[in-house]
Amino acid sequence: MKVLVTGGAGFLGARLVRELLKKGQLNGRPIIEISIADLFGAPADLSADPRVRLHTGALLNQTELFASGFDAVFHLASAVSGECEQDFDLGLRSNLDSTRALLDGLRKAANVPRLVFASSVAVFGPDAANPLPDRVADSTLPSPQTSYGTHKLMCEYLIADYTRKGFIDGRSARLMTVTVRPGKPNGAASSFFSGIIREPLAGVQATCPVDADVTHSVSSPANTIHGLMTVFEASRQAMGGRLALNLPGLTVRVADMLQALEDVAGLQVRQRVRFERDERIAGIVGNWARGSTADRALALGLRPDASFKSIIEQYMEDCRKPGYPADALRGLQR
Amino acid sequence: MKVLVTGGAGFLGARLVRELLKKGQLNGRPIIEISIADLFGAPADLSADPRVRLHTGALLNQTELFASGFDAVFHLASAVSGECEQDFDLGLRSNLDSTRALLDGLRKAANVPRLVFASSVAVFGPDAANPLPDRVADSTLPSPQTSYGTHKLMCEYLIADYTRKGFIDGRSARLMTVTVRPGKPNGAASSFFSGIIREPLAGVQATCPVDADVTHSVSSPANTIHGLMTVFEASRQAMGGRLALNLPGLTVRVADMLQALEDVAGLQVRQRVRFERDERIAGIVGNWARGSTADRALALGLRPDASFKSIIEQYMEDCRKPGYPADALRGLQR
Repeated sequence: MKVLVTGGAGFLGARLVRELLKKGQLNGRPIIEISIADLFGAPADLSADPRVRLHTGALLNQTELFASGFDAVFHLASAVSGECEQDFDLGLRSNLDSTRALLDGLRKAANVPRLVFASSVAVFGPDAANPLPDRVADSTLPSPQTSYGTHKLMCEYLIADYTRKGFIDGRSARLMTVTVRPGKPNGAASSFFSGIIREPLAGVQATCPVDADVTHSVSSPANTIHGLMTVFEASRQAMGGRLALNLPGLTVRVADMLQALEDVAGLQVRQRVRFERDERIAGIVGNWARGSTADRALALGLRPDASFKSIIEQYMEDCRKPGYPADALRGLQR
Repeated sequence: MKVLVTGGAGFLGARLVRELLKKGQLNGRPIIEISIADLFGAPADLSADPRVRLHTGALLNQTELFASGFDAVFHLASAVSGECEQDFDLGLRSNLDSTRALLDGLRKAANVPRLVFASSVAVFGPDAANPLPDRVADSTLPSPQTSYGTHKLMCEYLIADYTRKGFIDGRSARLMTVTVRPGKPNGAASSFFSGIIREPLAGVQATCPVDADVTHSVSSPANTIHGLMTVFEASRQAMGGRLALNLPGLTVRVADMLQALEDVAGLQVRQRVRFERDERIAGIVGNWARGSTADRALALGLRPDASFKSIIEQYMEDCRKPGYPADALRGLQR
């Protein structure tokens, strides 16, 4: 089985490729080869694996690669929401046109590849005539408040139509906010959902820009990857239709995230988080889903993370693996 | 005020241009010029009007025209649903890429044009996890069953995002099935909704391919054009959000359409319609909305046609105007 992972050099993508290499098969068919298509080079452990092929550069002009007969495609490549708000053309190019190029390449191939598209909870938002429900469901009417969410939604529907026509067997799964992400804070408004855990654990002060009673749906990296792989392996019938589904999220209050941090790492670590309201970020977050349900994903056997405590513990376990900065857990030391 | 009407040479587009020329203004601002961008040449009465400019050819390469500073845009140009099912690339090009080219042209202009997009009730359909409600509402989750419906929906969301960014002031209005259309039957599955009225009035036998108890939402050409112009003139606030709205439709049973025909034109005319079930067409129609509501359009003061009888009478009145075939009402003669 030939696999393509777009965005396979990114945080989630590389993690997915690692899991696929470890699993060695999908639906019982052995994985012979994994192609990574990404703007950037892949982590060393991946590029060293003889089953991995790297295709570095923009997706937009790789139609020929896409038409080369992949059996399985995980489409994760994406410019992030903040970038797309700053550079409208970049968003169109990276998230809409690239997906179109991918689909048209796959359509040209002789086979019908199965594809999983990483969509996003960012398709949801409030609109004057359509307020957000307390928990966004598979059946909630999308109303994106960013170009990122708009393009993700458009791609969901494009993929459903290519699937209806029999060109691909596509499935769109909406990712919840993935936390705890390693690395530096980035420009994303959601960055603090990782930062308020990651920085204190590293011994660094962190600022929480929203109120403690803000709620949000989150998912650990491992549970998110498990969700994408399960959606891939599901039968067409088990998917329950061609429309996108929500991956399960743990709906959690910021205050409870910090309580979990204290439970796992102690009061001293938790006290490195200071509340300082940022009106801009609080405004953006106020437009986000305050929680989610995922009936169709639950029917596939998927579950949210058990607790936010387990999400923190997963991050701490990851930090002890190679590839993570040596000082990621420095804040735990006396 | 400079106006652009894409698809302005088509049946609905030409009718819209005629109404705009007659009205002479929009929101109190005089119409100086109407540009028609269409694949085909315009009817003689329009091309003869000194205010009308014709731009004949594909929209896809007219970005420069689109950037030339229009104040008002009505975007009606579209390949129809049957064509798009037969030629997937044509659909992408005519309905998705052309809209994108239009929007990118408008974005380059110095002003912020107001745009009305003719979307379609074809965005709705049943999906395994999302059965169709009895009446599709503004807030019903779309699930297109054709490429045509898919591209219309994608354009709705693209227009909402260009509007959010302040590049245009866009509004998407979903047209119901427009009947009675003049001319010959076409390949569209909905063709019979006009045919079972038009042909008997012309003295020609007609076949109804679905059962008499099928219900559907229809709108007369005049009411549809009135809807598009009202949506154009509405304030941003009155629109109630950026998402697409349904134009009002008269939900009517096929049996009642034929009763209305008998009431208006007599039993002899009605008896020219024969029921002969066509499984292919009945299957397609079975996936369509069986009725619709239009709360946001009603709040703008729009209403469905008063009765199907009034829709037939409107068609008969039209048939007596220049431009309609002389024998359109031949079936009424003894």
